Amino acid sequence: MAISPTQAAAVLDRVDADLDAAVTRLFELVAIKSISTDPAYAADCARAAGWLVDDLRTIGFDARTVATQGHPMVVGHQAGPPEAPHVLFYGHYDVQPVDPLGLWERPPFEPALVSAADGTTVMTGRGTSDDKGQLMTFVEACRAWRRETGALPLSVTILFEGEEESGSPSLGPFLDQYGDELKADLALVCDTGMWDRRTPAITTGLRGLVGEEVVIHAASRDLHSGMYGSAAANPIHVLAAVLADLHGSDGAVTLPGFYDGVAEVPDDILAMWRGLGFSEKDFLGEVGLSVPAGEKGRSVLEQIWARPTAEVNGISGGYTGDGFKTVIPAQARAKVSFRLVGRQNPDLVRESFREFVKARLPADCRAEFHMHGGSPAISLDPDMPQLRQAAAALEAEWGRPAALIAMGGSIPIVGDFQARLGMNSLLIGFGLDDDNIHSPNEKYDLASFHKGMRSWARVIAALAG
Amino acid sequence: MAISPTQAAAVLDRVDADLDAAVTRLFELVAIKSISTDPAYAADCARAAGWLVDDLRTIGFDARTVATQGHPMVVGHQAGPPEAPHVLFYGHYDVQPVDPLGLWERPPFEPALVSAADGTTVMTGRGTSDDKGQLMTFVEACRAWRRETGALPLSVTILFEGEEESGSPSLGPFLDQYGDELKADLALVCDTGMWDRRTPAITTGLRGLVGEEVVIHAASRDLHSGMYGSAAANPIHVLAAVLADLHGSDGAVTLPGFYDGVAEVPDDILAMWRGLGFSEKDFLGEVGLSVPAGEKGRSVLEQIWARPTAEVNGISGGYTGDGFKTVIPAQARAKVSFRLVGRQNPDLVRESFREFVKARLPADCRAEFHMHGGSPAISLDPDMPQLRQAAAALEAEWGRPAALIAMGGSIPIVGDFQARLGMNSLLIGFGLDDDNIHSPNEKYDLASFHKGMRSWARVIAALAG
Repeated sequence: MAISPTQAAAVLDRVDADLDAAVTRLFELVAIKSISTDPAYAADCARAAGWLVDDLRTIGFDARTVATQGHPMVVGHQAGPPEAPHVLFYGHYDVQPVDPLGLWERPPFEPALVSAADGTTVMTGRGTSDDKGQLMTFVEACRAWRRETGALPLSVTILFEGEEESGSPSLGPFLDQYGDELKADLALVCDTGMWDRRTPAITTGLRGLVGEEVVIHAASRDLHSGMYGSAAANPIHVLAAVLADLHGSDGAVTLPGFYDGVAEVPDDILAMWRGLGFSEKDFLGEVGLSVPAGEKGRSVLEQIWARPTAEVNGISGGYTGDGFKTVIPAQARAKVSFRLVGRQNPDLVRESFREFVKARLPADCRAEFHMHGGSPAISLDPDMPQLRQAAAALEAEWGRPAALIAMGGSIPIVGDFQARLGMNSLLIGFGLDDDNIHSPNEKYDLASFHKGMRSWARVIAALAG
Repeated sequence: MAISPTQAAAVLDRVDADLDAAVTRLFELVAIKSISTDPAYAADCARAAGWLVDDLRTIGFDARTVATQGHPMVVGHQAGPPEAPHVLFYGHYDVQPVDPLGLWERPPFEPALVSAADGTTVMTGRGTSDDKGQLMTFVEACRAWRRETGALPLSVTILFEGEEESGSPSLGPFLDQYGDELKADLALVCDTGMWDRRTPAITTGLRGLVGEEVVIHAASRDLHSGMYGSAAANPIHVLAAVLADLHGSDGAVTLPGFYDGVAEVPDDILAMWRGLGFSEKDFLGEVGLSVPAGEKGRSVLEQIWARPTAEVNGISGGYTGDGFKTVIPAQARAKVSFRLVGRQNPDLVRESFREFVKARLPADCRAEFHMHGGSPAISLDPDMPQLRQAAAALEAEWGRPAALIAMGGSIPIVGDFQARLGMNSLLIGFGLDDDNIHSPNEKYDLASFHKGMRSWARVIAALAG
């Protein structure tokens, strides 16, 4: 379908005119406490899904929620012209927990427009950036197309997930069951970041993720350390010893076979990354650090984009309240995640970790394991035609070429789209490094939101051709 | 003062007749949630102190609370005959926290009389054994003497503390200020255990205690492990490495200078302990363990009575709720305690630990320390005359000689009585190994309570002489 320049410009004007209302809509969605990992918020997750279905219906989508073992999926369809391409847009409506709540300057679920010290306007609240604000940039772009022209220039299927922040346990079975309904020519994902405040980015590499929880059990009950201390196995000691063993003195992960399938980054890619003008000092300095902590002899960009990691994300055992209690606990637990690259196999990494723990258990101790998701790393072909079309659209909006970057985080669905549905994904997002996603005081720049909508309006036109 | 056998027998009868009322009184005290380590229960601690003052006044004590920087002390006096000895009785009205609450079979602050599977009757609830039930055995013995004979056969000063479970921070200053008022010929303490269900015990050795909390700080805020993983220092990793280093492969503590002042136990004492018929298998088996975890080549009794230890009593960092969160936390913390023996110096042990941690901090990390009490080990002269008198009284009540034992736990006040007031202490208690002190489902056998009161009634007579 040929789209006239006048028509495209009118759609962008419509985005501009509709900005206030778009902010109001996003704030309604952000106010819903859809924390997927905590069962206490299951009803809120369902409410967020319902809100999205209602909103999609107002702009012509045939939308519904689909129940899963966990939180519901949101699925919507809207046909474009018969000859137009068909895209599947993916986002997630669930958000991270908000603890430690005391560090938030504003209540996380009472979003607000705030003027930052540097003069920018930001939207505050959990999920404003990750991923409610980002997914709404696409929805709002569709709204502008629909309201301005009465239709979308391509066929769009929507899939919003409610478990992305908790390992996406329902996603595989869902894709197996509904793959035919979801399959499109290309997937679009808005869950990534800009290169910097002025430079748009398309993410072509993503690390995979393995999440594991390990519980070390010793005595059958908590013991008094005066009565049993040193005679009884202390599961905190056992856990500390296991976790301390996970990294060697060179910063490398010590799990047997961990680096199988990890290739060195080609020199030309490393050279391109060096050319990005990335400042390790600024990146670390912004969070109060000065020295890269990981594998020796590798740059920070290489560490976070191209190297696998093992990180303990949580640990607990014994008495953790105020004051002191001389207890030897019956158990201690840790949540450990592995970021994967290249062809590392999530199942083998998980198995290697479990064996690693079991090999270090002293007498009278046993380990219990809980799986929290696993996905391989993925990388996209930088020569894909749609990628070039999208890059041109982004350049038109931002006045600078889009950077092709890798990302340290994991978006499991991209691998699933490739493996299960044979679909490539374009990862375009407008988050910024200082958005505080997964942290207190999450925000999304109003400019990210506004120009993000405009960017999608342009990308939609570019892909429609 | 000569006490006639008839008079002593009448006092014991009075104890028997008053048992039901004594249980009712104890349950009133147990129902008060005097958890000293948690500031949320400060008013409950004050309430427990007030309850004790009121009760002591009903049996002729000139009693009052004395404010401290922390929870109040309870002080009471009652003069005996002019020529009679003067004893100071010490107990503590504060209790341990009750988490994990879900493991309690009955609410911890709703005490009840329950028939156990083996036919014994137990009193359930936090503090029934440690130390409310134990301290009331002495108060009830005084009550029986007073009600039966109109007076006590010796002069008694009472000191009840409200911070024993949280490191006794106010005790030193209090003893400095009120030492003259508190000084007596001998201190009596009821905060220890029987040798077994049928054999009374006098504890002549106690380990000391150093409590430390360490907080490792890294980045200025929680980070997303996808964005920062491996590039940013992870304080959980740093903490795990420090804690894993605390013990060598032989189970010994690795802190420099830690064993200074630790003497080997003399062979004759080791032989006496072997003669006690202690079963390592039963002791460990009762809590689901089978192998001593501590220093290699030493018996369990030696480990818990005569060797110093390092135990991590609590650890926390990052996301510890349900589910998973891929966070690199800004901080991680652990509570670590050291049990001391011989002439180990608590201040030097604390300092050595702090240096040990600091020496292991990588770039960008810092450690913060919080002190939670410190006291040296103490040991009593087994040939002290009052000890022999008390042992005879116990044998008369229980029909078996009292065992002279050491104890793994710490009762800091005994060292303070010795060091600050030049007073020896007799440690006599009626707790049992299965009382679950510091654990869910704490209980005190009704027989411990009843025969404990009778024992004190006899010991009072023996000391009055």
